Amino acid sequence: MRPSGRTPDQMREVSITRHFTKHAEGSVLVAFGDTQVICTASVEDRVPPFLKGKGQGWVTAEYGMLPRSTNTRMARESSRGKQSGRTLEIQRLIGRSLRAVIDLQALGERTITLDCDVIQADGGTRTASISGAYVALCDAIGNLRSSGKLATDPVHGQLASVSVGIYRGTPVLDLDYAEDSQAETDMNVVMNDAGAFIEVQGTAEGHAFHLQELNAMLALADSGIRQIMAVQQATLDN
Amino acid sequence: MRPSGRTPDQMREVSITRHFTKHAEGSVLVAFGDTQVICTASVEDRVPPFLKGKGQGWVTAEYGMLPRSTNTRMARESSRGKQSGRTLEIQRLIGRSLRAVIDLQALGERTITLDCDVIQADGGTRTASISGAYVALCDAIGNLRSSGKLATDPVHGQLASVSVGIYRGTPVLDLDYAEDSQAETDMNVVMNDAGAFIEVQGTAEGHAFHLQELNAMLALADSGIRQIMAVQQATLDN
Amino acid sequence: MRPSGRTPDQMREVSITRHFTKHAEGSVLVAFGDTQVICTASVEDRVPPFLKGKGQGWVTAEYGMLPRSTNTRMARESSRGKQSGRTLEIQRLIGRSLRAVIDLQALGERTITLDCDVIQADGGTRTASISGAYVALCDAIGNLRSSGKLATDPVHGQLASVSVGIYRGTPVLDLDYAEDSQAETDMNVVMNDAGAFIEVQGTAEGHAFHLQELNAMLALADSGIRQIMAVQQATLDN
Amino acid sequence: MRPSGRTPDQMREVSITRHFTKHAEGSVLVAFGDTQVICTASVEDRVPPFLKGKGQGWVTAEYGMLPRSTNTRMARESSRGKQSGRTLEIQRLIGRSLRAVIDLQALGERTITLDCDVIQADGGTRTASISGAYVALCDAIGNLRSSGKLATDPVHGQLASVSVGIYRGTPVLDLDYAEDSQAETDMNVVMNDAGAFIEVQGTAEGHAFHLQELNAMLALADSGIRQIMAVQQATLDN
Amino acid sequence: MRPSGRTPDQMREVSITRHFTKHAEGSVLVAFGDTQVICTASVEDRVPPFLKGKGQGWVTAEYGMLPRSTNTRMARESSRGKQSGRTLEIQRLIGRSLRAVIDLQALGERTITLDCDVIQADGGTRTASISGAYVALCDAIGNLRSSGKLATDPVHGQLASVSVGIYRGTPVLDLDYAEDSQAETDMNVVMNDAGAFIEVQGTAEGHAFHLQELNAMLALADSGIRQIMAVQQATLDN
Amino acid sequence: MRPSGRTPDQMREVSITRHFTKHAEGSVLVAFGDTQVICTASVEDRVPPFLKGKGQGWVTAEYGMLPRSTNTRMARESSRGKQSGRTLEIQRLIGRSLRAVIDLQALGERTITLDCDVIQADGGTRTASISGAYVALCDAIGNLRSSGKLATDPVHGQLASVSVGIYRGTPVLDLDYAEDSQAETDMNVVMNDAGAFIEVQGTAEGHAFHLQELNAMLALADSGIRQIMAVQQATLDN
Repeated sequence: MRPSGRTPDQMREVSITRHFTKHAEGSVLVAFGDTQVICTASVEDRVPPFLKGKGQGWVTAEYGMLPRSTNTRMARESSRGKQSGRTLEIQRLIGRSLRAVIDLQALGERTITLDCDVIQADGGTRTASISGAYVALCDAIGNLRSSGKLATDPVHGQLASVSVGIYRGTPVLDLDYAEDSQAETDMNVVMNDAGAFIEVQGTAEGHAFHLQELNAMLALADSGIRQIMAVQQATLDN
Repeated sequence: MRPSGRTPDQMREVSITRHFTKHAEGSVLVAFGDTQVICTASVEDRVPPFLKGKGQGWVTAEYGMLPRSTNTRMARESSRGKQSGRTLEIQRLIGRSLRAVIDLQALGERTITLDCDVIQADGGTRTASISGAYVALCDAIGNLRSSGKLATDPVHGQLASVSVGIYRGTPVLDLDYAEDSQAETDMNVVMNDAGAFIEVQGTAEGHAFHLQELNAMLALADSGIRQIMAVQQATLDN
Repeated sequence: MRPSGRTPDQMREVSITRHFTKHAEGSVLVAFGDTQVICTASVEDRVPPFLKGKGQGWVTAEYGMLPRSTNTRMARESSRGKQSGRTLEIQRLIGRSLRAVIDLQALGERTITLDCDVIQADGGTRTASISGAYVALCDAIGNLRSSGKLATDPVHGQLASVSVGIYRGTPVLDLDYAEDSQAETDMNVVMNDAGAFIEVQGTAEGHAFHLQELNAMLALADSGIRQIMAVQQATLDN
Repeated sequence: MRPSGRTPDQMREVSITRHFTKHAEGSVLVAFGDTQVICTASVEDRVPPFLKGKGQGWVTAEYGMLPRSTNTRMARESSRGKQSGRTLEIQRLIGRSLRAVIDLQALGERTITLDCDVIQADGGTRTASISGAYVALCDAIGNLRSSGKLATDPVHGQLASVSVGIYRGTPVLDLDYAEDSQAETDMNVVMNDAGAFIEVQGTAEGHAFHLQELNAMLALADSGIRQIMAVQQATLDN
Repeated sequence: MRPSGRTPDQMREVSITRHFTKHAEGSVLVAFGDTQVICTASVEDRVPPFLKGKGQGWVTAEYGMLPRSTNTRMARESSRGKQSGRTLEIQRLIGRSLRAVIDLQALGERTITLDCDVIQADGGTRTASISGAYVALCDAIGNLRSSGKLATDPVHGQLASVSVGIYRGTPVLDLDYAEDSQAETDMNVVMNDAGAFIEVQGTAEGHAFHLQELNAMLALADSGIRQIMAVQQATLDN
Repeated sequence: MRPSGRTPDQMREVSITRHFTKHAEGSVLVAFGDTQVICTASVEDRVPPFLKGKGQGWVTAEYGMLPRSTNTRMARESSRGKQSGRTLEIQRLIGRSLRAVIDLQALGERTITLDCDVIQADGGTRTASISGAYVALCDAIGNLRSSGKLATDPVHGQLASVSVGIYRGTPVLDLDYAEDSQAETDMNVVMNDAGAFIEVQGTAEGHAFHLQELNAMLALADSGIRQIMAVQQATLDN
């Protein structure tokens, strides 16, 4: 039995609220159950030094958690003077994933930065961030297109992400914190709308996992990601 | 005429939403018009080194802005590796102000940290932070009292804060960003419910201000702070 | 009775020694009693990035304390790897104040940096710094003018600063450390020679202060600042 | 055709040299072709703060690259003042992997730190590091056991790691730099001697990968890891 | 001919002013010509972690330059966030030198920190710092002894330092900046009152130096150090 | 008797292995007995900002120790966030020494960076680094010359370095760690092939040293350096 009473293949309620704050070119609040993340997309007319003069753009991400988004207060990273390895790992994952569905040549010499800031954490903050950032990215691109700055749409695929894992011997979908902290295996999956994988990151926490367990988890992920994509699509169509 | 169409002595709409996130002992979303700040109060059963063994508690604050809370994206302070002078100045102000209405002996050997994170900025983020943090602090204290950890209430006064300034020659209350960026004088005032001053910080931006201008601004601040205190009280009574 | 035996409206002896060190374009040693600060003004023919190409100059300040300028040794900020919030707050105050009396357009594309380094602290280091930095700035400007680099004088006002406070219930002028560490209220005031305010920063340390107390302190400040301005003027006329 | 002329399922030559340096409790030089990493295991009789008094040990890893281990010189991380996200990500992976085959209770209140320093890089530095660190860890444990400090062997499994990927449409084993920099998909796999997965980290670089491609890569990884384990075993038996 | 008109074996005027600031246990202003350094000695009743419980004391030094002690303004190290290699090198030299004339066992579990802050630089700041710090150290020890905290004098030798070099082919004593910046060889020498060497640091700037040049420079250093020791002694006897 | 059984004037075995790693323009492994250092020379077609447009090149060095190159593990400097004073001091020494034998004008607008990374330490790491870096530098220059990028050889002298000291009252050559940690005096000497000094850095650890001791140590250094130069020459001739 899952702590939340969900069935093994049951997602938490997913919601994505567009136009959550007013300044960013794209801004959403994404919720996977009690996990809530503000994702903003900021467009700047410049590229990082390593891309200067190459006629292409860049998409990158930064991730943060409010100090009391978690059960016990965490030290503020700006005050500690550096970002943790976990933070850097997550923001690299978000940026890399989003770059997989965008044509950087078509974007032109612009940078879009996705800021994913967790205001309440209950497991799955990185998968919620990726799923919400996709919508914020689409809104930012939409702004560029409606203002005539982009002739073609550089987004060539839809993308979402979910976590799966093995909890008390059973493969489960979309782990909340109660499960995540006790899961034997934890896996984050990013897929596109063609059903192909963009990222698969599986870690044995308690015991090593076998191929059939891996495949069972991937099947759950596929199902969850389709549901998230439906929410993304409904939100964007709204 | 003010850019917002407000009269000189008119506050923006102030709202304070309690229990905004679920983990913190106190958590509010405070809005002064379009300025929105999440204020959480976190209670920890330890004190900073300089207070160890002195039988008293501590109240402190940290302040941050989401990178795209502002009109153009700001670099993330955790990524830059340090907090700006402005950030440090504001968080020192918030902490100092709140310590003025709490009896640290009565609090016992505990630290309450007020985290004020701006999710949308439109002027007055520090005054909104102080005003919201007061409510979060009261909720954290309420939790300690209802759980029997505190026999007496260490909060011995109510406190709120507002900005005033001189905009195009006229003293005005509660400046938004459009006014703030062009004001000749900008002043942040923190007062208690006895009508006395806890902090007065006035800065001539364009031209130096005279005593009667100072007094006119302080009268506006007094009026605004009474209105904010009414919202605080209504929220806490709810 | 004040610890120093001074009357409530009595300043400490103020002295300003010009040409204190030989390399800087302006260099003074300012003393407010036992508080001693070296203020140098350095002229550089460049402006910070945010002002490039705007045809104007910049005036900024940095502040530091020698590790043993204080009663107990403080850790060196360069060794700790960062400046404290207090340091940043003070240097922002000094720079902002001096910019209030200088026409940055008339200065041309130059930066003048005021370095205020406390060699002995006994309260009032920031007000002594501002008052001394003004003289160093005048000397640097004088050098630019006498060498023909500046056609007109960009300094359009005189400025000085003093602290006031409430010590054992009485408003007092120019607090030394013994008073400052026990004052109920502490206020730093920067005024120009027209008697108008450039900065007013008042903080209730022990109990909140009332409007008539504020006004009594401001009157003391006005009197003290006039005395400091007389010393500045005499020094510059010398 | 692979740039090296290898067949798709062909490993580079793997060698592990024990007792490579003299001070560490375990010290090996591991080579996967031209990729060379020094892995040392250091035993210390203390644990990190979060484990104090819990009666268990800790295994952790740090990773670095000599500035000119790569084709063009990289800035030294100690000189830049921080470790890159990539470095932190890799050392977290190495530590997490090794903890999966050691009983931290049985280790007692000790920390074993695996330092993996790349002296020459040609792709696969993290998988070589994990595979070499396992041997260094075994030697450090062997030292503890032979000196009578450990009654039982806390290592409960063997572990190795290899990269796989899709290069020009074909799944290939153990990518060198020439392949890695052009691969469409890159996956790092850590497995134990029971053939189960400890880590699976797959990233689509060019195009998203399908389930059958994932499974083909995992089969290659399984084969490569068995070969590396044979080298580890032969080295340890020597 | 030397730029200053001095003869090759002529020191600049050396002066040492005791009790220069009021808080430190020892405080001197040392001048070697236009080079001026404030040296304070601070006594603290604790030792660094590596000496805890060993029944001995520690003597250490820190060095800094005011930003405009030099001809062109240097960035403040606290603002840059780290001390330069030159700064660290100099403060290590000062601390090491002073430890050579003090019995750390006899000092007891105390740390004496020598802060050497250059307020005006004209070559030889490190040798002036060492020579002045010795007097500040003696004063701090004197305070400990007169207050009955130290039964015996831990200082077992006198120490001073001077620079020598080869300027336009001639060995010269006590280089000022004009010479130092053009010298072919630069050597800093620290000696005790027995005429033995504590530190010899010679660097070929332009051309390598021969043994007889080395010996000529050491003879000059010996002569200069005797003169500085006479000033130290006269100052301390005063 | 020396711990190693060597006679006072006996060097440890010195070996220099060229082409130790494959990417760098020069790469050697230098060993002085058990002290082993990888020295690479990297050529880049740019100069530091302070040399831009001056038509000359630059030679600089960086130094590091693997965390477990020493008897007990040292914290990794990249993880601590800064290089120690010792590290900075050593890398400044290496760079300065090598610049003494190269004509920076003849090098052209290029930077050669010597990275000296200690993989096993047993005393004398800085002198081994300098001696090995010279060979790596020659190889990098050789590459530039053979590829036609340099018409003339900018290296105008040979250079090597050794430590000498006084151990139990006797001057000894090339101290290993057992001696170094107990020596009364420690001196590092860098000389060129004309028998002249480039650096002399002598430190009294236990008791101050006299002129005749200094001269005895310099004679030992001269003898040792000639032996190292023979190894360098043989290696380069190979």
